[in-house]
Amino acid sequence: MLRQVFRAGETYALPPDISEQQARRVWIDVPVETFVMTGSGGEILGTYYLKVNHPGPGSHVCNCGYVVAAEARGQGVGRALGSHSLREAKERGFRAMQFNLVVSTNVVALRLWKKLGFRTIGTVPGAFNSPKYGYVDAFVMYRELT
Amino acid sequence: MLRQVFRAGETYALPPDISEQQARRVWIDVPVETFVMTGSGGEILGTYYLKVNHPGPGSHVCNCGYVVAAEARGQGVGRALGSHSLREAKERGFRAMQFNLVVSTNVVALRLWKKLGFRTIGTVPGAFNSPKYGYVDAFVMYRELT
Repeated sequence: MLRQVFRAGETYALPPDISEQQARRVWIDVPVETFVMTGSGGEILGTYYLKVNHPGPGSHVCNCGYVVAAEARGQGVGRALGSHSLREAKERGFRAMQFNLVVSTNVVALRLWKKLGFRTIGTVPGAFNSPKYGYVDAFVMYRELT
Repeated sequence: MLRQVFRAGETYALPPDISEQQARRVWIDVPVETFVMTGSGGEILGTYYLKVNHPGPGSHVCNCGYVVAAEARGQGVGRALGSHSLREAKERGFRAMQFNLVVSTNVVALRLWKKLGFRTIGTVPGAFNSPKYGYVDAFVMYRELT
């Protein structure tokens, strides 16, 4: 599920040829916690990680990354993962959640994060080199957890 | 030199109790390159690292971190390091330089980055927990390398 998304290279700033070992490191080893959402038949619908965005004096702000299985799109999985992550982050005492690089062409994600109360606090010009669109802007998005 | 700055915890989002090994990782192992500026007597005046800010589709944007020795402040060392880093980054083919977390109380750095052509492209509310000032904003700063 992760491989498909990372290989496409349209939403995550990770090497498209990332190895399984590297992907495990990014998605499981480095984060504080990683969650998986399963369907009624036990199939994996999506996953997200929760991590500290910056250590030390920045460690009250968390960061998450989400992937929804291709077969499960358009069914509210992203929204369920997002809501879950906000609760989990708050419970762990984080004061805010920050996304450092939301690709401007990722309209589904942008719409969802706005619905969930995130606001755009910065725009990085041409931050993302999209295989499909070339250099496109990326947004820094932020939400307090109060 | 690094220990003093990291221990103070006023400018870098790193654990103030960072070990030498962790500090070496952050400053030397992870970056593409690390530079040291020395004075006429061989004394270290300052240092900076140059690294990729985000891998894969984000790898055309670099990031740097700078530290000036306490004894060498106010002598243009920061400016020399900054200018050097912009040249080095451009030579390596980076298209832009981004600082993810410039603490708003770090007025010396803010003034310098503006002089060197950086602009503030985002403000993260309360992003940095300063021992002296509590939760203060941090800026995302950015400069094209064209």
